[in-house]
Amino acid sequence: MLQNDGFRALDRGTCLRLLAGVPVGRVVYTKQALPAVLPVNFCLAADSSVLLRTSAGSDLVRAIDGAVVAFEADEFDAATRSGWSVVVTGRAMLLPDPDGQELLDGPDSWMPVRDDVLVRIDSEVVTGRELTGA
Amino acid sequence: MLQNDGFRALDRGTCLRLLAGVPVGRVVYTKQALPAVLPVNFCLAADSSVLLRTSAGSDLVRAIDGAVVAFEADEFDAATRSGWSVVVTGRAMLLPDPDGQELLDGPDSWMPVRDDVLVRIDSEVVTGRELTGA
Repeated sequence: MLQNDGFRALDRGTCLRLLAGVPVGRVVYTKQALPAVLPVNFCLAADSSVLLRTSAGSDLVRAIDGAVVAFEADEFDAATRSGWSVVVTGRAMLLPDPDGQELLDGPDSWMPVRDDVLVRIDSEVVTGRELTGA
Repeated sequence: MLQNDGFRALDRGTCLRLLAGVPVGRVVYTKQALPAVLPVNFCLAADSSVLLRTSAGSDLVRAIDGAVVAFEADEFDAATRSGWSVVVTGRAMLLPDPDGQELLDGPDSWMPVRDDVLVRIDSEVVTGRELTGA
């Protein structure tokens, strides 16, 4: 599976529809000058930004608040050697949520969180590719 | 799902066994100073390094040859909200392969590759976590 080689590029609408259908994606960021990656639950906001729920004091928040990150999700089927992947690249920001409504509407997390906050990843840049199989 | 919060850490042996059981992982690297991520097929070499097959002239090779990258694989089950993730962090290097034997033994790729080469990711640093469900 190679970039720009044998994949069909997906348009933004298709990318967002595929993203909306999976519960787990991966935040890709830099931690102490090294590449880092963490699977998280997420959902898409009304403006198509990616929302993550995490703990206010987590390592993840410290590493990504204000930074440009990538967010990736994919699905592949080994039997047909087919699948898709979508990458959102944008700035991650702790979401101000004065009335707590967005926190209620935000993604469910499979892990308990303490002092939960939402992180928003801007989705201005969305790329996706489909692998259609052998 | 939070780092250092509610996950069970996996030992190196378990991480490598889990990695060996999945066909797709994700290379996490830096491209033009931004975080980037690409799903790829892979296998583990006898020394437990990660081997990827790609095209000699690919963007991926240009970006990662000689650089420290992360390599991630995971499996999650939405019904039980359980799963695991493993991250290898190490230097990626084009693999010298004078007799072509390692190329024959390397991972299968779901995509056709041109002038295929193998990239080796050193697996000295391997971390993994298990999410055991609600």
